[in-house]
Amino acid sequence: MRIGFVGLGKMGANMVTRLRRGGHDVVVYDTDPKAIKTVTALGAIAAKSTVDLAGKLRAPRIVWVMVPSGKITEAVIHDVAKHLSKGDTIIDGGNSNYHDTKRRAAELEAREIALLDSGTSGGVWGLENGYCMMIGGNKKAYQKAEPIFKTLAPADGYRYCGESGAGHYVKMIHNGIEYGLMQAYAEGFELLESSEYTLDLADICHLWNQGSVVRSWLLELSERAFKADPNLEKITGYVADSGEGRWTVREAMDKDVPAVALTYALMARFRSRQEESFSAKVLAALRNQFGGHAVKEREPDTSKPTKGKRK
Amino acid sequence: MRIGFVGLGKMGANMVTRLRRGGHDVVVYDTDPKAIKTVTALGAIAAKSTVDLAGKLRAPRIVWVMVPSGKITEAVIHDVAKHLSKGDTIIDGGNSNYHDTKRRAAELEAREIALLDSGTSGGVWGLENGYCMMIGGNKKAYQKAEPIFKTLAPADGYRYCGESGAGHYVKMIHNGIEYGLMQAYAEGFELLESSEYTLDLADICHLWNQGSVVRSWLLELSERAFKADPNLEKITGYVADSGEGRWTVREAMDKDVPAVALTYALMARFRSRQEESFSAKVLAALRNQFGGHAVKEREPDTSKPTKGKRK
Repeated sequence: MRIGFVGLGKMGANMVTRLRRGGHDVVVYDTDPKAIKTVTALGAIAAKSTVDLAGKLRAPRIVWVMVPSGKITEAVIHDVAKHLSKGDTIIDGGNSNYHDTKRRAAELEAREIALLDSGTSGGVWGLENGYCMMIGGNKKAYQKAEPIFKTLAPADGYRYCGESGAGHYVKMIHNGIEYGLMQAYAEGFELLESSEYTLDLADICHLWNQGSVVRSWLLELSERAFKADPNLEKITGYVADSGEGRWTVREAMDKDVPAVALTYALMARFRSRQEESFSAKVLAALRNQFGGHAVKEREPDTSKPTKGKRK
Repeated sequence: MRIGFVGLGKMGANMVTRLRRGGHDVVVYDTDPKAIKTVTALGAIAAKSTVDLAGKLRAPRIVWVMVPSGKITEAVIHDVAKHLSKGDTIIDGGNSNYHDTKRRAAELEAREIALLDSGTSGGVWGLENGYCMMIGGNKKAYQKAEPIFKTLAPADGYRYCGESGAGHYVKMIHNGIEYGLMQAYAEGFELLESSEYTLDLADICHLWNQGSVVRSWLLELSERAFKADPNLEKITGYVADSGEGRWTVREAMDKDVPAVALTYALMARFRSRQEESFSAKVLAALRNQFGGHAVKEREPDTSKPTKGKRK
């Protein structure tokens, strides 16, 4: 079928490639002309603007939006919707907050435009393996767009999860779990690394993936990482986060769910980004106050005072 | 090859079955005659005692011990060793603490009997899939016993990890990680269950296993659990632990490794076994003390006072 596609970043370009391989006509737009060129080489049809993109689609139109969550998604959905009309569908394939998704869907519904939310997992591996997709929104719009999901996903790898926001909700929890799983493996590897034995971590990952209880895709990726850099000497332990872990913790607070492990996994990332911990300094200061315990004094430093955050 | 096997519980009986299918001669002993009968039906040779078992093996003998960790393992290894001599090997396939394993290996080494430690993962699924095995101890003894490991493991599913205790060490950390992974999934599912959407948890497990980042064997088992009992109404949230998680936390303390997620996963199991939390009562009492906040008073109960522990 024919589909419009806005946002040709790493994920978007790979998805368009997969759609082209699946035989779909894809009309593409991105603010970066270079990104457009990469996919027109695969037969995608370039649009000069979102209005041009809408003009190159036939009603009922379907436009996939694959841009960073937050303000950009808000602006792009708003912009695309201006050029659409009754019966058309926008699919937000990014990591939007499900509360935003519900609000946007309600706004578009007033104009009888459907907004589907598709939580999309698979990262850079999705191009070859397919993207696991969790979909929410108007069910009829979902059914019309199903050939698109079928091409993007691996066999049996997409699901209609429920009303607007359900897809982004399930994806949010997916990512929250991902933080917790990563933290568990990470702590385990630190214990292996600190042991009295000389253990080959890549080999242990490989071994554990042969029939052990902890076998998983993350463990396969761990094996790759340890093979490339056995003691992880080439990287620092600075861990970013892209929002979904925070929303999971907020959701836990909204619902009074004691999600301690998922919360800690997020906090461990915050700690990883601090060069110095103010709370640790407070502990050291208090031990000194009540027990006269020695503190490790700061070495004289002529450079600018650190604000605690790693660069 | 010919091997002796002591301990025909759930794991042991399945392992003997797999060894028989692999064409090995297995001389078996268990204190329960019924357990022996189950495997002699598969061609295993029954021994009446450990001394009889040793007599039915040819030097250099190999005896696999598969009994509960702790005192029983200690006693059985001691008993088996009495009937062995220089050049023989005992394999402890249970979940022994690696400190105990090192001590036992040193004791047996004085008599030139090797003790191999094999951390064994795979549970009830190991019979068909094979057991993932992490092996430590004397390398020559390992090499002699390798055909046994090869038969018990899936393809590429066993490894010599290092000197005595290395196998049990790696298995301990494996189980520690397992606790953390399970806790992460568990909290995620509670968030899915508490959401405003009506989500089919079994179906989401299945979906996530199609190309998503969190796909794993534990998630496949989750799908089975939710299929059998979609709202987990047939079970209570009482979670036992069998020791390895505690040892992982002790190891973290011995090595000053901040394994917070793994520690919390263990503590969450302790909490799951309390009917009432004394610390929560303290919090309620203190809120009442300083702020006059209402406490939920205990309903009059004519039965015996609870000690906090669930039965």
